[in-house]
Amino acid sequence: MTRWPIPRPMQEALAQARLAVESGEVPVGAVIMRGEDIVAAAHNAPREDHDPTAHAEISAIRAAAKALGRERLDDCELWVTLEPCAMCAGAISHARVARLYYGASDPKGGAVEQGARVFEQPQCLHRPEVYSGIGAEESAELLRGFFRERR
Amino acid sequence: MTRWPIPRPMQEALAQARLAVESGEVPVGAVIMRGEDIVAAAHNAPREDHDPTAHAEISAIRAAAKALGRERLDDCELWVTLEPCAMCAGAISHARVARLYYGASDPKGGAVEQGARVFEQPQCLHRPEVYSGIGAEESAELLRGFFRERR
Repeated sequence: MTRWPIPRPMQEALAQARLAVESGEVPVGAVIMRGEDIVAAAHNAPREDHDPTAHAEISAIRAAAKALGRERLDDCELWVTLEPCAMCAGAISHARVARLYYGASDPKGGAVEQGARVFEQPQCLHRPEVYSGIGAEESAELLRGFFRERR
Repeated sequence: MTRWPIPRPMQEALAQARLAVESGEVPVGAVIMRGEDIVAAAHNAPREDHDPTAHAEISAIRAAAKALGRERLDDCELWVTLEPCAMCAGAISHARVARLYYGASDPKGGAVEQGARVFEQPQCLHRPEVYSGIGAEESAELLRGFFRERR
């Protein structure tokens, strides 16, 4: 069986997740695309940065908004290897990100398709288009490998 | 009728909210306390900072974690003038904040007592003790005044 190739933005997000492993952080990576351009890329780094908000998505959103000099990313897409948590889903909404692509689902911490289901709440002022499962196997294997070594 | 005086941390949070008004930002303020000490204070500033994540709570948490040189604020309290949104409630949980005190409820954007109810989800790994309604009138009046002027 020939598998559909993983799109370049998700390949970049997976590369970011691998960088997180090297720093001893839970391997999650994210990139922000504007058309064909990578505006920002980041990995999960709360320990490294002494910052509990330094999830890959938050760091990528902050870097992209800074790079573009505005608080709204309504012409951008966010690609992330794992389903966003409530904090990150909220940030994606506040930033008006147009489209969200994520890899693996996260039953333990996700807040898009389970739990807080942030985008489905009446309090959610902006809902991105959401596409999931892209690069899910690669993302899940990175996470499994990380937690296996730490057991 | 004599009203109960507003505790000093909430007075400081309200002072931060007033600073937000001066910068043309939605008036929400937050402080992080560790015992009797103010570790960090911040106001809502997404426009000023070109940062969609720059809510008062997020900025205060980041500043406190940086000041203390660690990603967990388990010996700290967060005081904020308005009910946190999903993003901020998620950050409060990730930061392991021990106690959350907030002023006004926020039916339009809150995610503690309504909507996403972040702390009540099985995906929420840390639930702070939550106390609400402290300084609620003052907080709501600041917000009403702000939106009245912009109509």
